[in-house]
Amino acid sequence: MRVNNFLKEIRTGSLEFQRRGKKTVVVQGLGFVGTAVAAVIAGSRNETGEPQYFVIGVDLPSEDGYRKVAALRRGEIQAGSPDPELSRLIRQAVLDEKNLYATVSDEAYSLADFIVMDVPLDVEDRFTEKADNIRVGIESFKTAVQVVGRNMKPDALILVETTVPPGTCEHIILPELISQRSQRGIEEPPLLAHAYERVMPGAEYVSSIRSFWRTITGIDERSVRIAREFLSSFIDTREHPFTELQDTTSSELAKLLENSYRAANIAFIHEWTLTAEKLGIDLFSVIDSIRVRKGTHDNMRYPGFGVGGYCLTKDSLLAQWSLENLYGSDHRLGMTLDAIAINNRMPLHTLDLLIDLAGGSVKDRTIAILGITYLPQVADTRNSPAEILVDALIDEGAEVITHDPCLRSWVERPDIEFIQDLHQCLERADGIVFAVPHREYLELGIEDILVVSDRKPFIVDARNIVNDKKAEALHNAGCRLLGVGKGHWRKKGFQTCQEKY
Amino acid sequence: MRVNNFLKEIRTGSLEFQRRGKKTVVVQGLGFVGTAVAAVIAGSRNETGEPQYFVIGVDLPSEDGYRKVAALRRGEIQAGSPDPELSRLIRQAVLDEKNLYATVSDEAYSLADFIVMDVPLDVEDRFTEKADNIRVGIESFKTAVQVVGRNMKPDALILVETTVPPGTCEHIILPELISQRSQRGIEEPPLLAHAYERVMPGAEYVSSIRSFWRTITGIDERSVRIAREFLSSFIDTREHPFTELQDTTSSELAKLLENSYRAANIAFIHEWTLTAEKLGIDLFSVIDSIRVRKGTHDNMRYPGFGVGGYCLTKDSLLAQWSLENLYGSDHRLGMTLDAIAINNRMPLHTLDLLIDLAGGSVKDRTIAILGITYLPQVADTRNSPAEILVDALIDEGAEVITHDPCLRSWVERPDIEFIQDLHQCLERADGIVFAVPHREYLELGIEDILVVSDRKPFIVDARNIVNDKKAEALHNAGCRLLGVGKGHWRKKGFQTCQEKY
Repeated sequence: MRVNNFLKEIRTGSLEFQRRGKKTVVVQGLGFVGTAVAAVIAGSRNETGEPQYFVIGVDLPSEDGYRKVAALRRGEIQAGSPDPELSRLIRQAVLDEKNLYATVSDEAYSLADFIVMDVPLDVEDRFTEKADNIRVGIESFKTAVQVVGRNMKPDALILVETTVPPGTCEHIILPELISQRSQRGIEEPPLLAHAYERVMPGAEYVSSIRSFWRTITGIDERSVRIAREFLSSFIDTREHPFTELQDTTSSELAKLLENSYRAANIAFIHEWTLTAEKLGIDLFSVIDSIRVRKGTHDNMRYPGFGVGGYCLTKDSLLAQWSLENLYGSDHRLGMTLDAIAINNRMPLHTLDLLIDLAGGSVKDRTIAILGITYLPQVADTRNSPAEILVDALIDEGAEVITHDPCLRSWVERPDIEFIQDLHQCLERADGIVFAVPHREYLELGIEDILVVSDRKPFIVDARNIVNDKKAEALHNAGCRLLGVGKGHWRKKGFQTCQEKY
Repeated sequence: MRVNNFLKEIRTGSLEFQRRGKKTVVVQGLGFVGTAVAAVIAGSRNETGEPQYFVIGVDLPSEDGYRKVAALRRGEIQAGSPDPELSRLIRQAVLDEKNLYATVSDEAYSLADFIVMDVPLDVEDRFTEKADNIRVGIESFKTAVQVVGRNMKPDALILVETTVPPGTCEHIILPELISQRSQRGIEEPPLLAHAYERVMPGAEYVSSIRSFWRTITGIDERSVRIAREFLSSFIDTREHPFTELQDTTSSELAKLLENSYRAANIAFIHEWTLTAEKLGIDLFSVIDSIRVRKGTHDNMRYPGFGVGGYCLTKDSLLAQWSLENLYGSDHRLGMTLDAIAINNRMPLHTLDLLIDLAGGSVKDRTIAILGITYLPQVADTRNSPAEILVDALIDEGAEVITHDPCLRSWVERPDIEFIQDLHQCLERADGIVFAVPHREYLELGIEDILVVSDRKPFIVDARNIVNDKKAEALHNAGCRLLGVGKGHWRKKGFQTCQEKY
C-alpha cells in the first residue's frame, strides 16, 4: 500500500515536471556511481535557477536494493560520502526540491525520457592467480537491459555509463532491446549511447562527474546528438569538452584501456620494488628523481601495499573476456593480465616482510593492520588489498586485528576483529602493518607507536608512512622495521634487533 | 711521428690552459654521447666569455676509434648531427678556440683533472626472445676503467655517465681503480661520481645535455661535491636543479628504471593494438581520448612499428644482469623483460599485415620499407626495428628495398638495397611499409604513391602516416591497405581489393 502510494507520488511528480516542460530521468542502479549521478542530475539547474529534471533512482528489490532506496528516500546516502557536496545535493533534491525519488519498481522506466544505466557488471572471482576462465556477470546485466526494454518509452534515450566489455552495446544491449521492444510492437530502433563515467572516490566525488572529461558514442548519429544534449545540460563542458569516438565499442574499450594502463603501471613498479629492496635502495627517492621528467615520467607510481577498489582490479579482465566471448579471438592481453596477477600478489610481499621481522614465523603473533580502505581518507573498502593479507596471515596462524580511522567497522569482513581505538589496537600488537597513508597515521609520533614501554612491535611500512627520521628513532628504541620499497632500511640494519639505549 | 707531435700539441695546450688556471677534461669514448658532451664542455664559458676547459676526447685505437678521432680533429662529427648547434660548437672549439682535441693515446688521462666516462657498456644479443642468459660487455668496460686507473692523476675526478648495471660503480669500477692505483702506490681512495646522461637524439641534442635534469651521486661526499661543482659549470641548473640520491647504485638503477618504464609503456600498448585491430577500432583516436587526462594518462604511447635505438632495447636487460651477477638474486623482472620481448616482436606484426594483404604470401614480392631510422627526422639507425622486419621478409622469400630521407645509405645493412630516390623506390614496390613518420612521408600525396598507374601497391601503415581520407582515396584507387592500430580500416574493408572507379 505504502509502495503504491509512493509510486503514485513519483508518477505525479514526473507528470508535474513534464507539464512544466521538464524531462524525467531514471538512473538504473544506486551504487556508488548511480547515486552520485542521480544527485548531480537532480541538482542541475536551468538559466532561471530551477531544477531541470525529475530524477528517479531505481534499484533491485533485493535486501541491498531496498536499503539503498530507503536511504535515498530519507535524503541520505547509504554508503556514506567523503564529499560533503554530495550529501548536500541529495538532501536538497529529496527534501527541498522534491525532484529526486527512489524505488524498486520497474514502472519507473515507463516515465523516463532518459535512462542512465549505472548497474554493475562484475567479474566473479577477480582474484584468480591466472585469468584463464574469466566469468562475467553478464546474465544479471542482460536482465537489467530486458527490464528497460520491456518498460521504456519508445523514444527514450538509454545512456550506458557502466564499464562493460567492448562490444556490449552493439552485441548484447542492442539485440536485447530490439527483441524486447519488438515484442511490444515497437519496430523503430532504440536510442542507445555509451558515455562512461570517470568517478573518483574521495573529496572530489561530485566534481569528478560534473567537471571532468567525457567520451560520447552512440549506436547512431541521433543517439549521439541526444546524449550530447542531455549530458551537456549537467556537465561543465567549457573546461572539459566532450570527446567523440567512432562507435560504442571504441569508448567501451577506452575505459578498460585507461584503467588497465594504471593497473599495469602499478604492477610494473612492484617488480622494481623488489629489486630496490634487494639492492638496498630507497625506491621512493629514485622515483622522485625520475618524476621530474614531466609529460613522460611524472605518472610513475610509488611502491605500495596493493591495489583495491572496483575498477583497477577487474577492468582488464573484462577486455580479455570480450576478446574470447564476443569476438572469438584467442589473442591474450599478456602483460595486462600479468599486471592484475602481480597486483593481487602485492600484499603477500608485506607478509614476507612481516615473517622476516618476526624471525621466520608469525604463528600466534598478533598483527595489527592499520588501514583497510583502498584509498587514503576514503571510506571505501571494496576489494581492499588488506583482505589478501588478512587471509594469508590467518593461514600462517597469526591473530589479525584491524583499525581504520575512516571506518566504524569492516563490513566485508565481520570475521576479523576491528578496533575503533588506535591506542587499544597498538597496545595489543606484536607486529604492525601500515597499509593506507591516512593522515592519522602520517601524523603518528614515536611515542604513539611505542604505547607500552616494554612492547617493541615489529613494523612493516607498506605505504611510505614512516619517514627515515622516525624509523631511525623506532629502531633505536628497539623496534625492528622494514618498508616496502625501502631497501635502504635493510642496508642500515633496521630489521635487526637493537638494544634500547 | 705525427702522432707524437700531435700529443705534444695536446700536452702543451693542456699546460697552457693550466697556467691560466683552467682545468683539463678528458672524455673517454667518442660515441654519440661522448662527442656531444666533449663539445658542450669545450663550448662552456666563464664570466669573461673565455673557454673554461681544455678538453680531450679519447677513443680506442680501433678502426672505428681512429675514424671518430680523425673526424673530431677536423672539427667534424663522424656520425653526423641533427642539431646544427652541435656542429657549430665542435667547429668553434677545434678550429677557433683550439680547446678541443682528440686522440687514441692513453697518455691523455694523465693530463686530466676530470675524466668523464662515456664508453659503451653493451648487451650482446639484445634481441633474444627470452632474456635468460644476458651477456654484458663488462670485460671491455673493465679494461676502460683499468686504463684510467693506470694513468690518472691521483686526485682527478672520474665522472661516469655511461648507463651501467646497478652496483657497477661500487662493485666493479671502484675495486678496479683501487687495484690499479695501489700498484702505482696511490693509497688514497679515488674520487668517483655517477651522473647519467639523458641525451635525446634529434634537434635538441645539445640542449638535452646543457639544459636538462641530472641526478648526481658519488662514492663519498667529496666526490659528490666536486662532481656538482664540475657539472654546474656547464649545465644550466636554474631551471633544472640537480637531484641527489643516496648512492651510485641508486642513480644507476634510476636510469634503467626510467628507460624500462618507457619500454614497458610501449609494449603495453602493443597488445592493445592487436586487440583494437580485432575489434575494428581506431586505437589512435581512442588513445587521444584518454590522453586528455593530464598527469596520469597523457604519456600513453601510440601503436607503432617497433622500438629501436641504443637505450630502450637494452637497459632492462642490464638491470636483470645486475640482479643475477652482482647481487646473486633470482628475482626476475618479469613484466619488464616481457616488454622487451614484445617490443622485439612488434615489427613482425607488420609482416603479418603484409602477408595478409599479399593474399597469404610475400614470396617473390618486392616490399619497400619507407623509413629505417628509429626516430623521425633523426639519422640514427642503431638497432632499428626495420632490421627485424627485413630479416623476416627475406626468410619469407620477399625482395626488400629501402628508403629513408634522412640517410644516404644504411650502414648497418649493406646487404639490403637502399634507394635514395623515393620515386624510384615506389616504382618498384609491390608492397609498401610506412615505418617511420618522417615529414617527407606525411606530406606524400595519393599521386606520389600511385606513381605508375597500373601498379596498385598494397600498403601497411605502421606509424599512422596515412590519414583516413588518403586511405579511402588509395582504397578507391585500387590499393589494399591495413594499418597498425587501425582496426577501423579493416572494418571498412580497406584490405580487400576494389576495382578502380
